[in-house]
Amino acid sequence: MVIVMKPASNQTEIDEVSKVLESLGLGIHISKGAERTIIGVIGDKRLLNDVPLELMSGVEKLVPIAESYKLAGKTFRPEPSVIDVGGVKIGGKGIVLMAGPCAVESREQILEAAHAVKKSGAQILRGGAYKPRTSPYAFQGLEEEGLKYLKEAKDETGLLLITEVTSEKAIESAASFVDMFQVGARNVQNFQLLREIGRSMKPVLFKRGPSTTIDEWLNAAEYIMNEGNYNVILCERGIRTFETATRNTLDISTVPVVKSLSHLPVFIDPSHAAGKSQYVAALSKAAIAAGADGLIIEVHPNPKCALSDAAQQLTPSAFDDLCKDISKIAEILGREFKYGG
Amino acid sequence: MVIVMKPASNQTEIDEVSKVLESLGLGIHISKGAERTIIGVIGDKRLLNDVPLELMSGVEKLVPIAESYKLAGKTFRPEPSVIDVGGVKIGGKGIVLMAGPCAVESREQILEAAHAVKKSGAQILRGGAYKPRTSPYAFQGLEEEGLKYLKEAKDETGLLLITEVTSEKAIESAASFVDMFQVGARNVQNFQLLREIGRSMKPVLFKRGPSTTIDEWLNAAEYIMNEGNYNVILCERGIRTFETATRNTLDISTVPVVKSLSHLPVFIDPSHAAGKSQYVAALSKAAIAAGADGLIIEVHPNPKCALSDAAQQLTPSAFDDLCKDISKIAEILGREFKYGG
Amino acid sequence: MVIVMKPASNQTEIDEVSKVLESLGLGIHISKGAERTIIGVIGDKRLLNDVPLELMSGVEKLVPIAESYKLAGKTFRPEPSVIDVGGVKIGGKGIVLMAGPCAVESREQILEAAHAVKKSGAQILRGGAYKPRTSPYAFQGLEEEGLKYLKEAKDETGLLLITEVTSEKAIESAASFVDMFQVGARNVQNFQLLREIGRSMKPVLFKRGPSTTIDEWLNAAEYIMNEGNYNVILCERGIRTFETATRNTLDISTVPVVKSLSHLPVFIDPSHAAGKSQYVAALSKAAIAAGADGLIIEVHPNPKCALSDAAQQLTPSAFDDLCKDISKIAEILGREFKYGG
Amino acid sequence: MVIVMKPASNQTEIDEVSKVLESLGLGIHISKGAERTIIGVIGDKRLLNDVPLELMSGVEKLVPIAESYKLAGKTFRPEPSVIDVGGVKIGGKGIVLMAGPCAVESREQILEAAHAVKKSGAQILRGGAYKPRTSPYAFQGLEEEGLKYLKEAKDETGLLLITEVTSEKAIESAASFVDMFQVGARNVQNFQLLREIGRSMKPVLFKRGPSTTIDEWLNAAEYIMNEGNYNVILCERGIRTFETATRNTLDISTVPVVKSLSHLPVFIDPSHAAGKSQYVAALSKAAIAAGADGLIIEVHPNPKCALSDAAQQLTPSAFDDLCKDISKIAEILGREFKYGG
Repeated sequence: MVIVMKPASNQTEIDEVSKVLESLGLGIHISKGAERTIIGVIGDKRLLNDVPLELMSGVEKLVPIAESYKLAGKTFRPEPSVIDVGGVKIGGKGIVLMAGPCAVESREQILEAAHAVKKSGAQILRGGAYKPRTSPYAFQGLEEEGLKYLKEAKDETGLLLITEVTSEKAIESAASFVDMFQVGARNVQNFQLLREIGRSMKPVLFKRGPSTTIDEWLNAAEYIMNEGNYNVILCERGIRTFETATRNTLDISTVPVVKSLSHLPVFIDPSHAAGKSQYVAALSKAAIAAGADGLIIEVHPNPKCALSDAAQQLTPSAFDDLCKDISKIAEILGREFKYGG
Repeated sequence: MVIVMKPASNQTEIDEVSKVLESLGLGIHISKGAERTIIGVIGDKRLLNDVPLELMSGVEKLVPIAESYKLAGKTFRPEPSVIDVGGVKIGGKGIVLMAGPCAVESREQILEAAHAVKKSGAQILRGGAYKPRTSPYAFQGLEEEGLKYLKEAKDETGLLLITEVTSEKAIESAASFVDMFQVGARNVQNFQLLREIGRSMKPVLFKRGPSTTIDEWLNAAEYIMNEGNYNVILCERGIRTFETATRNTLDISTVPVVKSLSHLPVFIDPSHAAGKSQYVAALSKAAIAAGADGLIIEVHPNPKCALSDAAQQLTPSAFDDLCKDISKIAEILGREFKYGG
Repeated sequence: MVIVMKPASNQTEIDEVSKVLESLGLGIHISKGAERTIIGVIGDKRLLNDVPLELMSGVEKLVPIAESYKLAGKTFRPEPSVIDVGGVKIGGKGIVLMAGPCAVESREQILEAAHAVKKSGAQILRGGAYKPRTSPYAFQGLEEEGLKYLKEAKDETGLLLITEVTSEKAIESAASFVDMFQVGARNVQNFQLLREIGRSMKPVLFKRGPSTTIDEWLNAAEYIMNEGNYNVILCERGIRTFETATRNTLDISTVPVVKSLSHLPVFIDPSHAAGKSQYVAALSKAAIAAGADGLIIEVHPNPKCALSDAAQQLTPSAFDDLCKDISKIAEILGREFKYGG
Repeated sequence: MVIVMKPASNQTEIDEVSKVLESLGLGIHISKGAERTIIGVIGDKRLLNDVPLELMSGVEKLVPIAESYKLAGKTFRPEPSVIDVGGVKIGGKGIVLMAGPCAVESREQILEAAHAVKKSGAQILRGGAYKPRTSPYAFQGLEEEGLKYLKEAKDETGLLLITEVTSEKAIESAASFVDMFQVGARNVQNFQLLREIGRSMKPVLFKRGPSTTIDEWLNAAEYIMNEGNYNVILCERGIRTFETATRNTLDISTVPVVKSLSHLPVFIDPSHAAGKSQYVAALSKAAIAAGADGLIIEVHPNPKCALSDAAQQLTPSAFDDLCKDISKIAEILGREFKYGG
């Protein structure tokens, strides 16, 4: 259930409605748009049966929400959300590129990568410090040491930072270093982690799991948003199918489907979808043409020597070529991406 | 095994090699490129063990082919194939759009659709006369009557014609009416039908099945090409996955993957992939940006009244808007599509 | 729509009802059960709006059928169908095993296989004469020569024969040799072939496709039954999923699901599902425990030398061990399988 | 790398080998079988290049392990593991049933369920106290209150207890109440949780994720075992496919496949696989026939009133019927299950 307030409603009226809802034991989420305020109601709707909310001052109408994802859905907020990450706007007119190596491997590697991706137009540097790997015997990341190198790269280049967090402890460690978190595909329904990400209030790139339906994914986002953190950016990274020519099958339809259901920005991760660097450019261009708000792309100064996911990382030069094309496609479609930063 | 002839080799030399191969009971496929001739050898390679082909006049080298798809693979023909359908070139610089209703329903409907899609830039008219339907109790197409209406639409508009054929009898009936055949997803491994399509020598739009791997698909194309018909255009139309938000999951990666494995042109069918008209434009733009050679799109003068697949057909006006965008994206990427025909 | 006649209704009454339906241009299917006759009506139900069928002599009630599969559904025939194949009853109390090599490779091979599987309790001999193969360059079967060897094996052992047919021509050739046809997974929606199988009136083992839903499969069976051939045995042979440890993923749930929706017998093909002979016994026992009416198993006198599907064929000795276990499980569950024939 | 000691080797020899490995910075895992001891080596094998381990006293041979799952694989331990949970042996001759409601809903409900499942032969009571739900607005479990009711049920009936844990905190709370943990499908690659489960040393029922390959699943088990906790029971609960007739597709082949790759016991969860109670009995019987070591089944005193997964829970009476059949099938196959407890 969502309560839509009149455009002219004032704070006192909003407070009155909130008070009534809280007195019934219901949770509330207040979303102030440019024109009007919307109050989301969390809990058993039947408690409202005897309360004539429509008659309260400032209330325009009550909208029942059938979707189980209340806060992520368009009924709650019909216009697209624009999320501010350290001054970079995600979900507006601009296309945002996040780029960098799969994992932070050394100080030199991440600095070199950072300068390279910055030069081509990326605004956010990615690099894994905590790597969830299929096998416990594979390289698991540099952890806090990696975070320090990331920070140094930020100080040198002005790029913002994103890194994956996989546990409450990692959230605490990473919080002071990075500008936004990433939740990886394996943790898409790790509800405990999602709640903690929610409480951190940091912007988060929230990846779809390899077998998560769009409906389940939006419901999972709800665990983050339900804690009050609305800074969620959805990121499709390929789903698991029978086809083995690519690592995963990029579900490009996610872009228009999510845009029709939710107000949250949508990103594409072509690197994990393809699993092979030679297909990344085609998928990246397709994503922008389909209407994605940005991309997260793996770029490594020397892909052949990468400690993880060697096959899927672009060289800085291939990334640079791609950025030129993206800039042109963006312009044609009324979006904006500044090649060359 | 493929025999690459020297650039300067002449017809007599080619004939000599062919004769030797045939005398051993091997099949041959001769492909004359701009620069050189390539002879594909079909059959048990071990028969060649004692025959010093490398020493024959005009022979440059022998290339063993590991892929089971010999004729569809890039080893056989490294440059992209350009297929001529009644003067329209498919697989070259130009982007080709095929458009029209799911099924031919009446003379008026197909004429109206033809004029509409022609006006926006489509070059080939689609329309089902033989409809393979999940249930035998559903509308099965107008059959020969439908073919006649299609022919009338061609005469009026100058559009070329494509229609699906599902049996030997349909091939015979349709051959004199249409310019190219379509093999639908359900028949991707109906090898008997593929052989007959091969013998017809007509250009064919060959759709991937909903659970066919790219490798199996290229092998199936081999059944057509093995009969001497190299005019095969591959068309991805969505694969079957767990996601139900779309009718199928468009495997956009097919475009770069097939381009890296085969010389055949690649099309995308966004209508069957999405199953909902509202997502067709985004998927179409993504396909062109990914490098597809063309699209086949369902357009109906009045989608709500369609006898089949009503939800996924575009209105002429939505198709027109899409053509404008495609024209702009094509240009940016060095391709060509003339909006407005 | 289904018309249920009274237990005491006679032939004249049935003819009267049929005549009325036919005069309206509707198709009919008459199914005579032990107790009562049921008349299935095919076509536009609205034609019946003004015809008071309920009042006709012998009619008990009219049952509207929502499922698109009318003839395969339980509404049409609530009790399980028992299909007679040359005296062998399929779908009753007895468990029936069909066994033999993937392909007929030689006279000796098929005779040896026939004697072996007969000895352990199989009642029907399988062997491919027309092999649909992924690649056109792979062994395609001995065709008519293979059919003759099969016939010889039947004459020697008394086993009945099943073989796959892939085209109208193959149906004609095979009809005089074998007791039942098999439609393979690739042809599950080759509707033209299904109609011809229907017209042949031969019993048919109808395999599910690797990505066919149960609903689509039952609808496809309708194409056969709609021609008057009700002798359809459904056979699950593994669906296509992301898991690669087995060739396909055996959907064992098919057994109880189909039993709840349809009156047709259900078989399992553990050989194509597993793709590895070492897993065939476990899957076979699971199938019988789940309630399957029989199995079709690949058995080859010398699996290592098989020309197709070498990895998945059992040795005669492994098949013999399995038959002992099946006999015991069948008995426990109130079914019957005679080990040792 | 695994070091196989001679049958006659003594503790001093084992200690000597261990000391050498540790001095090189390598981790070790010692597994004492009935006949011989095996030492697993964790870390970079190249460190062993100059160390002639084969010549050390008591060493029989060195076995390189190609699989990334060292501890879960059969090379490490060729005989099946038998895991002791409070006196109940899992993985040996006996079939073990775990049963109870999806969630603990009240004291009365869990006590009633416990008495019912005990009566039919279950040895372990299941009941969710922490429920991971797709939507944050759905019932999330009684948490610690639920654990207390479970404990009361144990005290009354003598059943052992299993419950799902979803976070470090839940592990701590539940540890003193229950006899074994369950890791749910959503957390199959929540590596942080797996490590904590490993450290707890409690037996764990480790469910496969809906899109986890068997290879990834065994690798994930390695995260638990790598902490020293070898008490891992694998549980297949259905994978995600295109078929929607069941909630998930039970991958019954998991039983023989895992048995061929790993020494760990394998369970089946037919309730989550089917999602509909009417299919649970068929799948349960299939699982036992395929060789599973046990089942975990949802049983609710009054399924229609269940707060979660109402459609898939058996009534006590249906469970009782099933136990009779399982007892008979187990006996036939040389296993043991005592109907009636």
